[in-house]
Amino acid sequence: MNLLFLGTSAGVPTKTRNVTGIALRESKGKGWYLVDCGEGTQHQVLHTKLSFHSLKAILITHVHGDHCYGLPGILASAAMGGRKAPLTIVAPASIKTWLEATCEVTQLCLPFALEFIASDDLPSVEFENIAVETFSLSHRVASYAYAFTERKVDAVLDVAKLAQKGIPRGPLWGQLKQGFDIEFAGERLKSHDYLIFKNTPRKVVIAGDNDQPDLLNEACAEAQVLVHEATYTEEMAQKAGDVGHSYAKLVAAFAESIKLPSLVLTHFSPRYQFSSHASPSIEDIRKEAEGAYSGSLFLARDFGEYTLEKTGHFSEVVGE
Amino acid sequence: MNLLFLGTSAGVPTKTRNVTGIALRESKGKGWYLVDCGEGTQHQVLHTKLSFHSLKAILITHVHGDHCYGLPGILASAAMGGRKAPLTIVAPASIKTWLEATCEVTQLCLPFALEFIASDDLPSVEFENIAVETFSLSHRVASYAYAFTERKVDAVLDVAKLAQKGIPRGPLWGQLKQGFDIEFAGERLKSHDYLIFKNTPRKVVIAGDNDQPDLLNEACAEAQVLVHEATYTEEMAQKAGDVGHSYAKLVAAFAESIKLPSLVLTHFSPRYQFSSHASPSIEDIRKEAEGAYSGSLFLARDFGEYTLEKTGHFSEVVGE
Repeated sequence: MNLLFLGTSAGVPTKTRNVTGIALRESKGKGWYLVDCGEGTQHQVLHTKLSFHSLKAILITHVHGDHCYGLPGILASAAMGGRKAPLTIVAPASIKTWLEATCEVTQLCLPFALEFIASDDLPSVEFENIAVETFSLSHRVASYAYAFTERKVDAVLDVAKLAQKGIPRGPLWGQLKQGFDIEFAGERLKSHDYLIFKNTPRKVVIAGDNDQPDLLNEACAEAQVLVHEATYTEEMAQKAGDVGHSYAKLVAAFAESIKLPSLVLTHFSPRYQFSSHASPSIEDIRKEAEGAYSGSLFLARDFGEYTLEKTGHFSEVVGE
Repeated sequence: MNLLFLGTSAGVPTKTRNVTGIALRESKGKGWYLVDCGEGTQHQVLHTKLSFHSLKAILITHVHGDHCYGLPGILASAAMGGRKAPLTIVAPASIKTWLEATCEVTQLCLPFALEFIASDDLPSVEFENIAVETFSLSHRVASYAYAFTERKVDAVLDVAKLAQKGIPRGPLWGQLKQGFDIEFAGERLKSHDYLIFKNTPRKVVIAGDNDQPDLLNEACAEAQVLVHEATYTEEMAQKAGDVGHSYAKLVAAFAESIKLPSLVLTHFSPRYQFSSHASPSIEDIRKEAEGAYSGSLFLARDFGEYTLEKTGHFSEVVGE
């Protein structure tokens, strides 16, 4: 599983950082998922190896423009690029209303179906290689986190547990082995509960804007990586009088409290620059987070790419 | 008057060319007008000296996404940048509906008023230093051209004509002298008709997508410059089977027929590259146009800037 950051700026783009867009690539094949789609996300994609043909789904964390204004354009460009395959969109229900209004006003007729799933219902969505779960956050508007867990990981059936549950050997065992949840005796049984994994399945949680990281407790169970906004340092957050966002220490302390292996911070206020000589600098955010978190800490850069290996090891991909 | 091209690609952005956005800067002060606002236009503006505070109006030629998807984002960024002054938007009426839906769904509350003028009514709009007229074009959807004529040019009153019309010396003369149209004896009199200009007022026509350049006959009267799309060469247009766009020769022949001093072509299909070694190359479009037009021909580049002097001389601004 790879993460590729297409934008790391909060609210407005800067000369060097775009607004939010995060690509999560499957470990198998070229399939990818786009979490948030701020304006200009399609422009960023042009500078990567990602193709609109292999995009499996777009997931929007919340309705603010810096997270969704790129949606009509990316769909139009996928259409003009010849995409025919249906595309799943997981987003707040009002985004569907807006997209429909946009298509009507701008006479955009997509040659592929949009399979819309409302994140307000906290859906679990299963793709071929990835299962996605949805969790509620706290922001000025409804905001969500999406947890991506790989399916089809190397695993053997937990035969003792299957026998104990009285599940007969046969097709149901096969389905569980392949990572599908099943119905048995009126109960929904999760594949993961009947498998013994060689490695813990890879799991990445990507959160939208949120001022209460603690809400991610359940989402982060068994996750190796959390991607969370850290719009400010604590001091700057107080100065800004901002409502609805997190500062570095708040997120870092949460990650520390759950012993999260790896934390990626992003969505930095546009006033922050990467240069350590600048003031304020993204290094200020790093320092504050380091003081509260002992795991592997990363501060996302536009076009920064990170890989999560089977073993759970997470690291930055060094440029080719 | 200066023209600064923020995007020259048709339909979709490329790695080096954005979709349509054209800034027209007043000769006096820093005021500017934005014609079309494809996705990423605000990102392009960041790389210029233009400020959202001095933006006088946004004019949209038609509803297609590559001409308007950047509108919500540019308004949001102007708001976050502290703009308070009202902003005029001249656009097809359905753009107003779409902007309102967008603001509602994405909870965008602008701290400045939008003064919306429907281009469907072919309005004439007078700004302090510029008068704008609207003309209908031919495209798959309603499409418009905007003619920008400078006001307050050095001129003296045509006293003989004023006397002949029976307009009494006094405040009405003053208004006409300052470039304001007046009501007199139940008739609307145009300032321009009662002035003797030292130089012809500068006039630039910027057209939206259009497959019948002849429609611009009236719009181009007394204009020094026409900016028009040339999406293809004639051969490529036939291959593409495209409906609604112009090819180089068609526009060039029209410009030649009206003895237009300067023509700027833009909105090139994304398949065209600037390198003369590429195929197809924008040079192919240039060659085709040169064969049919004997005036000053320019092929717009992203961030290419052009100046129209008082004398009517139009030329590219060479980089600082």
